[in-house]
Amino acid sequence: MARWVFYSATGTCALATHIALYEAGADVEVVKLDFAANQQQSPEFLRINPKGRVPALVTEQGTLTETPALLAFVAQRFPQAQLAPLDDPFAFARLQELNSYLASTVHVAHAHKRRGARWADDPAAHEAMRLKVPQNMTACAAFLESLIVGPWVMGEQFTVSDGYLYTVGSWLEGDEVEMSRFPRLVAYLQRVGEREAVRRAVAEAAA
Amino acid sequence: MARWVFYSATGTCALATHIALYEAGADVEVVKLDFAANQQQSPEFLRINPKGRVPALVTEQGTLTETPALLAFVAQRFPQAQLAPLDDPFAFARLQELNSYLASTVHVAHAHKRRGARWADDPAAHEAMRLKVPQNMTACAAFLESLIVGPWVMGEQFTVSDGYLYTVGSWLEGDEVEMSRFPRLVAYLQRVGEREAVRRAVAEAAA
Ligand SMILES: N[C@@H](CCC(=O)N[C@@H](CS)C(=O)NCC(=O)O)C(=O)O
Ligand SMILES: N[C@@H](CCC(=O)N[C@@H](CS)C(=O)NCC(=O)O)C(=O)O
Repeated sequence: MARWVFYSATGTCALATHIALYEAGADVEVVKLDFAANQQQSPEFLRINPKGRVPALVTEQGTLTETPALLAFVAQRFPQAQLAPLDDPFAFARLQELNSYLASTVHVAHAHKRRGARWADDPAAHEAMRLKVPQNMTACAAFLESLIVGPWVMGEQFTVSDGYLYTVGSWLEGDEVEMSRFPRLVAYLQRVGEREAVRRAVAEAAA
Repeated sequence: MARWVFYSATGTCALATHIALYEAGADVEVVKLDFAANQQQSPEFLRINPKGRVPALVTEQGTLTETPALLAFVAQRFPQAQLAPLDDPFAFARLQELNSYLASTVHVAHAHKRRGARWADDPAAHEAMRLKVPQNMTACAAFLESLIVGPWVMGEQFTVSDGYLYTVGSWLEGDEVEMSRFPRLVAYLQRVGEREAVRRAVAEAAA
């Protein structure tokens, strides 16, 4: 298998896939884009991902984007790592349900803080969006808190969803969510953060 | 297998899963919620889906939500319908990449027309969001147009992604996208709309 190339940037949702790749033991070259220099819009990167976003994973079969798709792909390509319940359609759907909610609701709610220009041109509208982020992210946190029962979000088995929930969960405090209201989530995020693969990905994402 | 119950509403993304269920030949009872009467926020429905949204599918194993998760679930539970490349992780990831993009980017861009109150309280901000919908949906349409090569969006085989792209694609004209700029997409949407299962789901969703 040719070495995969993984495109990431500091402080982004790409951390979720980064964690999955390390938990799986994938042999991957990590390329960090400098968002301050707008490298995600460079002609070189737009040839790799025309959407101008991270994560993007270049494999021997082609380039893949979109976090939920990448997480399921990593789990399926490294079955021995047991990062998803691959033989149980309902349990797999539960995992995908969370990933899809994180991508389409929680990540989107968070993006209204700094990426309001995606959805409106008026600076006053961006400010109005920013103002609502703490309320929306608090509602998301309350829902996520209700999901944490076992040591991991899907129960006894660590899965790709844990790296994703950890990534999105690490945005909550910066989005002014009062974390003390969500003690199970706080303990959970700490538990995920102690894993060796997670620490390595976090350190590389921050570097 | 106990009969599944599928919760839907007129003019929503639930049509994508509705189509998948009919293409699969699933034995399902369809329950339509009246959004004008805010039935998605009724105590009864919030017990089924605390997120207060459709689609929601009640199965013998529990309730599932989130379109991309439901589409993969239907494909996996009805393998004989061949609604996804279940034995090829890369091809499956391609399908999921599109579903995830439709859920987290295109659907979200569209929702800024009527659901701006999710992301800001100021009515002027809602108006600013509405103003940008045609531009964003046109950019999405251009990207989607670039994907249409075969008769179906994944190539020779009709998949759950076709029902989803059909659903989201049917919003473009109402979002003021100049459809004549996207002839392959127009022809594709017509092709999908001619399928028997699609017609049945569309008729039921509209009724
Ligand atoms: N739906 C995509 C979203 C990807 C995304 O929005 N990535 C952000 C970082 S968290 C990005 O690359 N933003 C760059 C930009 O907006 O210019 C996913 O879940 O992977
Ligand atoms: N991420 C969810 C989104 C579901 C969603 O937003 N559904 C809309 C209809 S398209 C809804 O139920 N809205 C009701 C409301 O906002 O009150 C999915 O892809 O299934």
